[in-house]
Amino acid sequence: MRDSDPTACVLIIGNEILSGRTKDTNSGWIADRLTLLGIRLQEIRVIPDVEATIVSVVNEVRARYTYVFTCGGIGPTHDDITAESIAKAFGVPWELNEEARAILRSNYSRDEDLTPARLRMAMIPRGAELVANPISKAPGFRTGNVYTFAGVPRIMQAMFEGVAPHLKRGNVLLSHTIVGNVAEGRIGDPLAALQRCYADIEIGSYPGQRADGTFRNSVVLRGTDRERLAAAAREVKDLIQSLGGEAVDEPPQ
Amino acid sequence: MRDSDPTACVLIIGNEILSGRTKDTNSGWIADRLTLLGIRLQEIRVIPDVEATIVSVVNEVRARYTYVFTCGGIGPTHDDITAESIAKAFGVPWELNEEARAILRSNYSRDEDLTPARLRMAMIPRGAELVANPISKAPGFRTGNVYTFAGVPRIMQAMFEGVAPHLKRGNVLLSHTIVGNVAEGRIGDPLAALQRCYADIEIGSYPGQRADGTFRNSVVLRGTDRERLAAAAREVKDLIQSLGGEAVDEPPQ
Repeated sequence: MRDSDPTACVLIIGNEILSGRTKDTNSGWIADRLTLLGIRLQEIRVIPDVEATIVSVVNEVRARYTYVFTCGGIGPTHDDITAESIAKAFGVPWELNEEARAILRSNYSRDEDLTPARLRMAMIPRGAELVANPISKAPGFRTGNVYTFAGVPRIMQAMFEGVAPHLKRGNVLLSHTIVGNVAEGRIGDPLAALQRCYADIEIGSYPGQRADGTFRNSVVLRGTDRERLAAAAREVKDLIQSLGGEAVDEPPQ
Repeated sequence: MRDSDPTACVLIIGNEILSGRTKDTNSGWIADRLTLLGIRLQEIRVIPDVEATIVSVVNEVRARYTYVFTCGGIGPTHDDITAESIAKAFGVPWELNEEARAILRSNYSRDEDLTPARLRMAMIPRGAELVANPISKAPGFRTGNVYTFAGVPRIMQAMFEGVAPHLKRGNVLLSHTIVGNVAEGRIGDPLAALQRCYADIEIGSYPGQRADGTFRNSVVLRGTDRERLAAAAREVKDLIQSLGGEAVDEPPQ
């Protein structure tokens, strides 16, 4: 990683993930998007709907990373405490945001439909900038380097795409995968030697199975320089073949 | 949560999760199992294959929770640095474990097959207790309250099941779900009032869609007392019906 590349943390907020009831797919989706933007995702953390925890974790990670993306807990019910907690983390009031209120009001034909519960979704940390929600209107928001999104995947995704053009981009980490059939225990030592020669390329080895149940091992190479990446990938391929294996390379992404 | 209930943290260690290449399913699987054991999962954290990060995070979370479960980074290649990092976190040598070596040796017909890379999998923090791997032999291990498992899901699962009978159990958090069709914005206020009356029941509201695209909202109640849980669930059902909605309850789990 180059020091100049922006970094990020994803915070998934919700008891339902920790209980296992809901399986988180948001962090993996954001991971994919950040990789394409050249932003280095350094941490994913899932925490409960507990104010003190949200406040301390947000303050810890916003100081450490370029960007923090939170998912979950900004709906209209009592267990949606993310916005209030973010306000506390930043030491600013959690208050009715008139712009957010107008957006919510436009969703309903009558004032009465803007229940106190729904108005909760217009309560935003002071000074935050709203993040548009093209799906169901109730906005997310940005406070400093912390982006607060909904937990419903398609709403979160739409919010992310709305802010993505404004994020600082880094050098995109290109990847090249060589799929082979030589066991890790045999390829491990020469692969370690190869890694020492290519300090600028991150080489990972991931064993798995093909659809037909036979063994496969994916060697994933990552780097920002396309030529160095191709040279290292060529060496991995030669290495597998020299051990009597078959190696298939997937094209650089 | 009762103070007497054991708590846990899951640490997923691996660059491939943070890049988005691999989608983590281990944390959700462990979350389900811990819920059934009455162990409260308080945090899931995904961190990179960076020794300093693993050491500091392991030391942070092992002091905070009853149990820590790590997944990933105990294979035979150079990027598998979890065991060495755990040893550093505990301030003990990372050394050849003769029991682990014998287990690995039994996998091969010849001494030569026990390559230096494979022997890496027998390098364990001093004082650790091995965790059996019925799938591919190379063991996990327990160091104090930290369980170190493989990252391959079926191996991780087999390791977890091997240690599960030895874990301290807590009061199982029973759950009861009421599925309704009243918008969160309408149910939010009375649901908050209900939560105030049932401080011992955790009430969560999760909007979603049915397979046919129509709106549904799941109200999930959790508690350790079956009668209190049933009473609160009954009230949620009445509440939805009083607002003109339909409410279907899923049986307690």
